Amino acid sequence: MTAQNPPATAPQDRLGVGNIVSELRALRVASQRSRYGDGALPALPSRKEMITIVDGLVAALFPRHFGPPELTPNSVDGYLTFILEKTLRALEEQVSRELKLNSHGSGTTALNDAARAAEIAVAFAQSLPKVRALLDADIRAALEGDPAARSHDEIVFCYPGVAAVIRHRLAHQLYLLGAPMLARVIAEMAHSETGIDIHPGATIDESFFIDHGTGVVIGETARIGKHVRLYQAVTLGAKRFEVDEDGALVKGKDRHPILEDNVVVYAGATILGRITIGKGSSIGGNVWLTHSVPPGSNITQAKARSDSFDNGGGI
Amino acid sequence: MTAQNPPATAPQDRLGVGNIVSELRALRVASQRSRYGDGALPALPSRKEMITIVDGLVAALFPRHFGPPELTPNSVDGYLTFILEKTLRALEEQVSRELKLNSHGSGTTALNDAARAAEIAVAFAQSLPKVRALLDADIRAALEGDPAARSHDEIVFCYPGVAAVIRHRLAHQLYLLGAPMLARVIAEMAHSETGIDIHPGATIDESFFIDHGTGVVIGETARIGKHVRLYQAVTLGAKRFEVDEDGALVKGKDRHPILEDNVVVYAGATILGRITIGKGSSIGGNVWLTHSVPPGSNITQAKARSDSFDNGGGI
Amino acid sequence: MTAQNPPATAPQDRLGVGNIVSELRALRVASQRSRYGDGALPALPSRKEMITIVDGLVAALFPRHFGPPELTPNSVDGYLTFILEKTLRALEEQVSRELKLNSHGSGTTALNDAARAAEIAVAFAQSLPKVRALLDADIRAALEGDPAARSHDEIVFCYPGVAAVIRHRLAHQLYLLGAPMLARVIAEMAHSETGIDIHPGATIDESFFIDHGTGVVIGETARIGKHVRLYQAVTLGAKRFEVDEDGALVKGKDRHPILEDNVVVYAGATILGRITIGKGSSIGGNVWLTHSVPPGSNITQAKARSDSFDNGGGI
Amino acid sequence: MTAQNPPATAPQDRLGVGNIVSELRALRVASQRSRYGDGALPALPSRKEMITIVDGLVAALFPRHFGPPELTPNSVDGYLTFILEKTLRALEEQVSRELKLNSHGSGTTALNDAARAAEIAVAFAQSLPKVRALLDADIRAALEGDPAARSHDEIVFCYPGVAAVIRHRLAHQLYLLGAPMLARVIAEMAHSETGIDIHPGATIDESFFIDHGTGVVIGETARIGKHVRLYQAVTLGAKRFEVDEDGALVKGKDRHPILEDNVVVYAGATILGRITIGKGSSIGGNVWLTHSVPPGSNITQAKARSDSFDNGGGI
Amino acid sequence: MTAQNPPATAPQDRLGVGNIVSELRALRVASQRSRYGDGALPALPSRKEMITIVDGLVAALFPRHFGPPELTPNSVDGYLTFILEKTLRALEEQVSRELKLNSHGSGTTALNDAARAAEIAVAFAQSLPKVRALLDADIRAALEGDPAARSHDEIVFCYPGVAAVIRHRLAHQLYLLGAPMLARVIAEMAHSETGIDIHPGATIDESFFIDHGTGVVIGETARIGKHVRLYQAVTLGAKRFEVDEDGALVKGKDRHPILEDNVVVYAGATILGRITIGKGSSIGGNVWLTHSVPPGSNITQAKARSDSFDNGGGI
Amino acid sequence: MTAQNPPATAPQDRLGVGNIVSELRALRVASQRSRYGDGALPALPSRKEMITIVDGLVAALFPRHFGPPELTPNSVDGYLTFILEKTLRALEEQVSRELKLNSHGSGTTALNDAARAAEIAVAFAQSLPKVRALLDADIRAALEGDPAARSHDEIVFCYPGVAAVIRHRLAHQLYLLGAPMLARVIAEMAHSETGIDIHPGATIDESFFIDHGTGVVIGETARIGKHVRLYQAVTLGAKRFEVDEDGALVKGKDRHPILEDNVVVYAGATILGRITIGKGSSIGGNVWLTHSVPPGSNITQAKARSDSFDNGGGI
Repeated sequence: MTAQNPPATAPQDRLGVGNIVSELRALRVASQRSRYGDGALPALPSRKEMITIVDGLVAALFPRHFGPPELTPNSVDGYLTFILEKTLRALEEQVSRELKLNSHGSGTTALNDAARAAEIAVAFAQSLPKVRALLDADIRAALEGDPAARSHDEIVFCYPGVAAVIRHRLAHQLYLLGAPMLARVIAEMAHSETGIDIHPGATIDESFFIDHGTGVVIGETARIGKHVRLYQAVTLGAKRFEVDEDGALVKGKDRHPILEDNVVVYAGATILGRITIGKGSSIGGNVWLTHSVPPGSNITQAKARSDSFDNGGGI
Repeated sequence: MTAQNPPATAPQDRLGVGNIVSELRALRVASQRSRYGDGALPALPSRKEMITIVDGLVAALFPRHFGPPELTPNSVDGYLTFILEKTLRALEEQVSRELKLNSHGSGTTALNDAARAAEIAVAFAQSLPKVRALLDADIRAALEGDPAARSHDEIVFCYPGVAAVIRHRLAHQLYLLGAPMLARVIAEMAHSETGIDIHPGATIDESFFIDHGTGVVIGETARIGKHVRLYQAVTLGAKRFEVDEDGALVKGKDRHPILEDNVVVYAGATILGRITIGKGSSIGGNVWLTHSVPPGSNITQAKARSDSFDNGGGI
Repeated sequence: MTAQNPPATAPQDRLGVGNIVSELRALRVASQRSRYGDGALPALPSRKEMITIVDGLVAALFPRHFGPPELTPNSVDGYLTFILEKTLRALEEQVSRELKLNSHGSGTTALNDAARAAEIAVAFAQSLPKVRALLDADIRAALEGDPAARSHDEIVFCYPGVAAVIRHRLAHQLYLLGAPMLARVIAEMAHSETGIDIHPGATIDESFFIDHGTGVVIGETARIGKHVRLYQAVTLGAKRFEVDEDGALVKGKDRHPILEDNVVVYAGATILGRITIGKGSSIGGNVWLTHSVPPGSNITQAKARSDSFDNGGGI
Repeated sequence: MTAQNPPATAPQDRLGVGNIVSELRALRVASQRSRYGDGALPALPSRKEMITIVDGLVAALFPRHFGPPELTPNSVDGYLTFILEKTLRALEEQVSRELKLNSHGSGTTALNDAARAAEIAVAFAQSLPKVRALLDADIRAALEGDPAARSHDEIVFCYPGVAAVIRHRLAHQLYLLGAPMLARVIAEMAHSETGIDIHPGATIDESFFIDHGTGVVIGETARIGKHVRLYQAVTLGAKRFEVDEDGALVKGKDRHPILEDNVVVYAGATILGRITIGKGSSIGGNVWLTHSVPPGSNITQAKARSDSFDNGGGI
Repeated sequence: MTAQNPPATAPQDRLGVGNIVSELRALRVASQRSRYGDGALPALPSRKEMITIVDGLVAALFPRHFGPPELTPNSVDGYLTFILEKTLRALEEQVSRELKLNSHGSGTTALNDAARAAEIAVAFAQSLPKVRALLDADIRAALEGDPAARSHDEIVFCYPGVAAVIRHRLAHQLYLLGAPMLARVIAEMAHSETGIDIHPGATIDESFFIDHGTGVVIGETARIGKHVRLYQAVTLGAKRFEVDEDGALVKGKDRHPILEDNVVVYAGATILGRITIGKGSSIGGNVWLTHSVPPGSNITQAKARSDSFDNGGGI
Repeated sequence: MTAQNPPATAPQDRLGVGNIVSELRALRVASQRSRYGDGALPALPSRKEMITIVDGLVAALFPRHFGPPELTPNSVDGYLTFILEKTLRALEEQVSRELKLNSHGSGTTALNDAARAAEIAVAFAQSLPKVRALLDADIRAALEGDPAARSHDEIVFCYPGVAAVIRHRLAHQLYLLGAPMLARVIAEMAHSETGIDIHPGATIDESFFIDHGTGVVIGETARIGKHVRLYQAVTLGAKRFEVDEDGALVKGKDRHPILEDNVVVYAGATILGRITIGKGSSIGGNVWLTHSVPPGSNITQAKARSDSFDNGGGI
């Protein structure tokens, strides 16, 4: 009945929202078609769920520091049973979404994805005690490596390097088990919180310590031995990217450094390419290094000049 | 009736709060008088509102990734209509506050500020489809530029460089339209989240990609062409600040670099002053550059020495 | 009655949670015994409480910018009385926890810890007006030092350097008064938010300004004079760590630089060791400096080469 | 390794929680077995979801009063599209759970339940405009029937009788469509909020008004005509329950009153059994009525005595 | 460009949301036009704001019971200054909305409404100490009138009768000052929470106590003297409604009872019409009373019969 | 320094908040002195904590219905261990507050109160399995007693009578153990939610069912046998209150009815005084009863008249 219809909505649309919605739809649909064709869009993993999952896992690993404050020695195992059961099932659901996202359009059935997600969740669960043992060694390394460190509790509580490594060790398990996108989500949550950017693919052995940490970048295929210590703004990167005959990037090749046991890398050093830093070496601050060095090397950068002022650097 | 009055409050004020409140008031009032005189204080923009506004805009641009999880293809346009109408009106209110803050004490009337705020909100709204189109190109650039990137969804979801550029492109519109303080609020929200500090005044063309990103700083008058790629800790800064006859800083002059199309700047490079990096140039990691270079240049830094250990760099 | 008992739980424990909980308990108990023996575990400070406390203190210092939006000139002192009383008592409780954590196992009684916590809370409260006065000078320094800065309000609202210094000045008081772990918690909250890592032990005089700030690291024993300005990625660090006869780190010694009044340090500069940068000196971007320089020095780094492209720096 | 195991937990279990958990499990398992045998327990509907669903439906019916405050004429339809799509899908999920709960152990497959749930959701959606039209008439009846009523907006906003009828009309649709448990959940939410207890099975025609409402009870098989008005504490109940040969209650029979058009029932009246109150009748306050009355009847209770005080009534 | 447009949305609209939104719009617009014509819709008061306002007022009246738990004797006045300033300004805004809603379409200007709202807020504020004094007397009356009452704190904390009277005394001030719709919102919030329905127009003198309270209804023009006590399910109602020549209800006339000082009304009694219950009278449980009684009356109901079972009452 | 002081605050205090705060303080202090003298005010129990505690207890009793939705058979015991440990400790703290509130000013030491609170918490914990067993019988009684009841799950989920009885059985334990104020807080929470007001002192045997429930009031010393069923608006109250020689109420005497096994009381019936309703009796709707009746009685009220309309009952 026309009498009941509203007047033309145009005069009400003072901000022009109607047109903007249409234009955004056109752009969105074009983008989605280029990836998914005309079919239904697969569900995405949920950032909010991943935050809850990581919180649950960290609480399970260090319940006294990151669990609910009401925990007692008598209730901590009960709580862990609850939070792990809940968190692992939520993780299984997110893994399942990642698998389905990948198999979208392929012949893989949803059933296979769900079964594989369950296997991944179980294997991930089994890795947790190993992760905790590694982290205990990491915390001891922090206590030994930082003259300002006062106690185990302070380190667990405050150190961004430890916060980043906790999350990396969890993300790395997911990466190994076949959920690299979720692993990346966890890594970027840690990156945002700490300024430390460790690709979940990086392999890091026990007793690892990053001090201060802002600006550290560790690449996907880096391999780090035992008792390695890094300071802020250290880069373990790729020297250059290989391209194939068509000019496209070659993905997945080993392209980041290997640091053997007991290496120390001081602030701002940049180590690039699939080179090896020999056992016990020290790489000085701000050093730029693109070739392997033997065990026991001490590498430092050239001295700065001290002369008349000719440049700025401010913004 | 005196019998009902409390005893002198001094004995209860164990922490001395009364005196502290008085002293803080004196400091606060002195500070406010130096800026606003004895008149009423103008209302400030609201950080909390700005967070809600940016969340709303990002959800409108990428509803599948950042909108509510319950969205369906059937409801997404309805949701966008709602969230844009709500968000743009909230933005209009905040713009109006910024304008009033600036016109405080001047002859401009509140009415003019409100009318100008409405114009800015409409113009900002109209820019959103263009912003989305630019971002689509940015995402494609990320997919092409990072060998570790697996999918469009992973990039939108996880990449801090993309998160920072989404927010920059929004902030830049506000900067152009005359709301530089709100633009700065948005830029600093992105800075805090990603470690990437892009001044909202910077002009950035399509297909821009920042990888890793922590420590990147891009100055107010920088101009960046198409298909430019930056890595972590790159600075596009000012060489030195000009001062006027009275020794005060000269504000607003072009003082940051121009990067032409297809330039790549590797990690830690510092490029200072109103210089031009010619089309297709590569600036190597940690390079310090204060002069223009022609198209196709490859700039690298001096090699590091490899000798006995004499400095640290730890803290 | 056996008929009412559930069947063996094994078939339900699809994810193997039972075993994981047991293994995590064993690791946790071993770790706790190594630190606390068989006794009861002391309560830890609460991160959540510390966040609330810092929010309360910042609101008390700058109520117009960070207090509740409903504040009016007529209610601001009442609000400050409430929020300070509440916040200082909460702080007293957390200080008491830190003291008990430290005295755990020693002869100190809990009563002494509580009395000391009360003294610390009172002394901390008394320092707040001094902190606000210092911050007012810091804000003025920002306004004078950044050509992009438009207003006092924008600086308080948006500048990460100011956010970090507000929190540092609070943390430093706690450090001096004997609550170094809580001080560190506050410092790391600021670090996570701004990318600026100032150890709470660092001594910083008035009119201090950090621009951009991501990657700045300032060590525990650094001393900074009046009117000093730092840019992003500046390190004021230790040259090397002394070890005692047993190879253990010597803790607590002066090992970080002294910056006299009116020093400027440009982006990426690294200054290491207990050296003195003389009054009014400028340290150029990316400079690496491990020796003292006299007042008025201008230090810059070596020039970069400009030659054929041979390295990357991407990841 | 035994050395890592905690001591027997008994001394820590000061509150005896371990035993209580065991005893509660035994009771719980016994109760569940009596209903579900040894199989898996079916998922229950979620009260929290149902609260969200009802909030969504009420917002869709009266967006100006119960939708988000930021709605504008320009965005209201978009919002409704979003909230209805979201709410109806959530309802479909809850209906599906109710159907599965009922078919638990029967031969019905989960697939059939899901298909049936989808049909119910669609049919429910289609009933919403009819529900809104009925409610518009109810609100008009309230405005005409209450001398204290000032405006349409006040009635929608404040009147518990209207709040209860909105929810009843929604619940009744679910009841008719085959989701009686969810219907009951909605009815009890309204009951808790308003003190008005309308069984979702009750059939109520247009222009219905309950004033004050606390204590009103309307039974499952009651039928109420147009323009009926009830006051607080009115009961439309069953006279007695029929039992079958085994003494079990006969369920589902018509056992509550029929009120024809234009009936008024004053506060505290009790009308019991499958009787008919003829068109236009008035039933006085506190009347007890167990037989039908013809159209136009005026029924009042016996007068109270006025004599010496002999009873209390307090507690 | 057609290629970018989505396919017709019909197949995606499985739930038929599009049609429902259209039908609801038609109904909504028709309803709004009948009240407001084609003009803009006035803003409604906000229930959420009213809840916050009532919480603030109750906290100001009884800060130890209903204020934040961190209040101390030293901070309570500061908190009250803050919460009252905030709450009264929020109330002023809501009063302004109510006045504008009423003056919609009339010649009254928005400016007059705002000025009137400010006057109402000030007058309301001034009434708060009087309200608190009345409530202190009400609480004493509860302590004296209930054999199960143990302490002042228990009564303030737990008694629904006291909760309802606190809110009534606030609502009554708003009613008197000219904001009857907000007054009604407060009354219905109390009604929902306690089951006690007091119209904000009712005049109630000091030392008033309602025990249990569920089902109590007190009409708009009721007048209650000092030291009156009511039990659950008491009605102070209107006998019948007067209609004018056109059959419309006559609104605003005195139509509810007057209870003089020291009257007690036991559970379930119904007192109707503009009658007077003389000083010191007792009205027995379940009594039905429609005529005045002199001071000192004791009214009881007729005795129940005790005979064969012939009716039910269940549902 | 006077120049820094604000101008007199009077012109800013538009709402007169300063005076109101002073007047409220005078009233508050006078009220507190009359109860506590000049000493410190004891801490009050926390309503918010009690809500959390009751939620925790109800979740422990019926985890599938009221626990977190993520519970699985594998995690339910762990969750119960956690939630009970947490909830019982929180309850212990609240009991301790109630005891201290009572012993305020007496010779009892805080230490004794804490020890007594611990005993009460343990004894309360031990009663929980018994409470669950009673509730299982109550639920069965509901299923058998209501022809509209469909399933065990529906009853636990939806029935206000069951919700009230769950809370009563918890409150009753606290009442018996010596925490009557907390018991009352729980009872009033149930009262507000369901309209059913059961004093925590009332003794209620197994298989108890209240249908509909709004307006039910059960007094402190009432005793109810097995298999009793009540309908809405039933009062089990005191006939009159005894006063001592000074006219003060005699508290604590048995003054409410005894209902023997298998009694049914229909809606609106009022039973007053320490009388006994014999086993298996039925009390009809709206009956007013103040004398004992033998086992097997059927009591009904007098018939209503059916004559000309002479009263209203509306409001």
